[in-house]
Amino acid sequence: MKALQIEDIKKMVSTIGYPKFYEKLIKTLEEDYSNWETFDKTPRLANHVPDGVIELMPISNDKLYSFKYVNGHPKNPLQNHMTVMGTGQLSEVSTGAPLMYTEMTLLTALRTAANSVMAARYMAKKESKVLTLIGTGAQSEFQFLAFKEYFPLEEVRYFDTDPKAMDKFERNMKSFDMKLTRCENAKEAVQGADIITVCTADKRYQTILTKDMITSDVYINAIGGDCPGKTEIGKDLVESSFIVCEFLEQCKIEGEIQQLADDFTCTELYEVVRGEKKVNVETHGTILFDSVGFAIEDYSALRLTYDLAKELNIGTEMNFIPELDDVKNLFQLMS
Amino acid sequence: MKALQIEDIKKMVSTIGYPKFYEKLIKTLEEDYSNWETFDKTPRLANHVPDGVIELMPISNDKLYSFKYVNGHPKNPLQNHMTVMGTGQLSEVSTGAPLMYTEMTLLTALRTAANSVMAARYMAKKESKVLTLIGTGAQSEFQFLAFKEYFPLEEVRYFDTDPKAMDKFERNMKSFDMKLTRCENAKEAVQGADIITVCTADKRYQTILTKDMITSDVYINAIGGDCPGKTEIGKDLVESSFIVCEFLEQCKIEGEIQQLADDFTCTELYEVVRGEKKVNVETHGTILFDSVGFAIEDYSALRLTYDLAKELNIGTEMNFIPELDDVKNLFQLMS
Repeated sequence: MKALQIEDIKKMVSTIGYPKFYEKLIKTLEEDYSNWETFDKTPRLANHVPDGVIELMPISNDKLYSFKYVNGHPKNPLQNHMTVMGTGQLSEVSTGAPLMYTEMTLLTALRTAANSVMAARYMAKKESKVLTLIGTGAQSEFQFLAFKEYFPLEEVRYFDTDPKAMDKFERNMKSFDMKLTRCENAKEAVQGADIITVCTADKRYQTILTKDMITSDVYINAIGGDCPGKTEIGKDLVESSFIVCEFLEQCKIEGEIQQLADDFTCTELYEVVRGEKKVNVETHGTILFDSVGFAIEDYSALRLTYDLAKELNIGTEMNFIPELDDVKNLFQLMS
Repeated sequence: MKALQIEDIKKMVSTIGYPKFYEKLIKTLEEDYSNWETFDKTPRLANHVPDGVIELMPISNDKLYSFKYVNGHPKNPLQNHMTVMGTGQLSEVSTGAPLMYTEMTLLTALRTAANSVMAARYMAKKESKVLTLIGTGAQSEFQFLAFKEYFPLEEVRYFDTDPKAMDKFERNMKSFDMKLTRCENAKEAVQGADIITVCTADKRYQTILTKDMITSDVYINAIGGDCPGKTEIGKDLVESSFIVCEFLEQCKIEGEIQQLADDFTCTELYEVVRGEKKVNVETHGTILFDSVGFAIEDYSALRLTYDLAKELNIGTEMNFIPELDDVKNLFQLMS
């Protein structure tokens, strides 16, 4: 069984480069979303704890089973811990045998960015030039790196309630030739935006973006509202936007649409990926991609990572699963 | 973060010895069962796949969160794979940070045996001398080793549909001074039994044990019927026994009591452990402990294993979780 640590994922991405890694991951995501009906899907299983949430996200089709463990603890940075940490495992469905255990903090940032840009390629304006990032935390650079590969970006506008997070973002962005516009607030940040990524961490109902801030049709990639009681977009803007989500059943529990009536339905991403529904800002006006992060995205990331780990000989072989001559003789191991 | 492989668990148990390990695990189980209402409990999340089932078993209280990954694939031995394989993770609730990832195939056999004997100490006859094992697969020796510590066993009677599994059991039992009685069928095996452990693997409704086979009051430790559509005990015997289960909500889905009416209720193990209900074969007649394996047992096993791993300096420190100077600067890891 393979074990992949932080340095293994770093080595994997640096060996093939961000553009190629994102390209492969987007291709894998599109394949898996296209096979939507072949997956055994369930909303993630959440244990709500005093300072956050701890979740398991399982999914399977007839070949592979994957799950991710992930937490969300908004107060963690105050104790010098990351808000979100992840680990995950990939198994073979035919035998149930685990194939790989891996870090998924980096992989989550990478797969979220890949999923964001995959969706935006269908739904945002092809000529999107201005990307706004509301929240410049752990995921912001990964978002930028993915979007710059697929859109002709000329400017990144950004705002975070934590000035140090903006300082950090600016340091990391120095090596890229990009106009950076630091803003005083979300309203200023979204001015002239073609694509807005909203990614904040606070676990409560918030209205980071409201309808009055949006003066022309825009594509909103809302990835931070992902928990019951945690939203980012004002109800007026949710109601007036054309909404696409990943998995309606989970999104109604966790997404921006938890603000709407129980019987609300909307387009799911797989319908867009398959071309069954053509959805674009140019034809549909402002679009809200209510992205809470669904298990299929981790499945894609784990499937790709496992293939690349074998191909590039990355990771450590470990004995987490017994190897026995007589499979009914588990006791033999102990003697 | 600690990683524990097969050899680490073996080292842990051999360092302190089976009797001491079982003693510590039983104590931990009793502590956790006693704090039943402090746990956030849910039936396990099962993905049913063509040849078996793949499950996640999460649980948490205000200190620790644990989950186990476990499969059940009855046809696996035909392809030289184990029927049941497990892995698990323990995390800190206050931050969500994972503390340990470990093999759980061995730990599952150990915790199941410890849980079986812990329950039997309350409910079986103190002077139980004859242990019957129906099914001599991977778990049988672990069951024997635990029961022999806590009951004055004089004879083990056993039957398995696979003669090779009985040969294997006999080889492993050679070093113990115990009367072994190999039987032709379940009926012969249960003759004169004080405690019967039923642990078979087939994923279907079975009637391995029926009422007519039971001629005097006995304690039935039914640990193999643990999945929807997978039972071991005839309905007549289920109906005529006093039933105790681990977690009613899960057991109604997976246990022997799935054969009974939807509104059936029974005593839960925590009530017995706390002494709120006194249940014993001598006062209640034949008792069926409908044990499907509940997440709290894995929590206990993981909690103890983590403490012992630290104390005995066992396991490998690995970087599955990023360590950052600035916790919002995940991107720094990649540069």
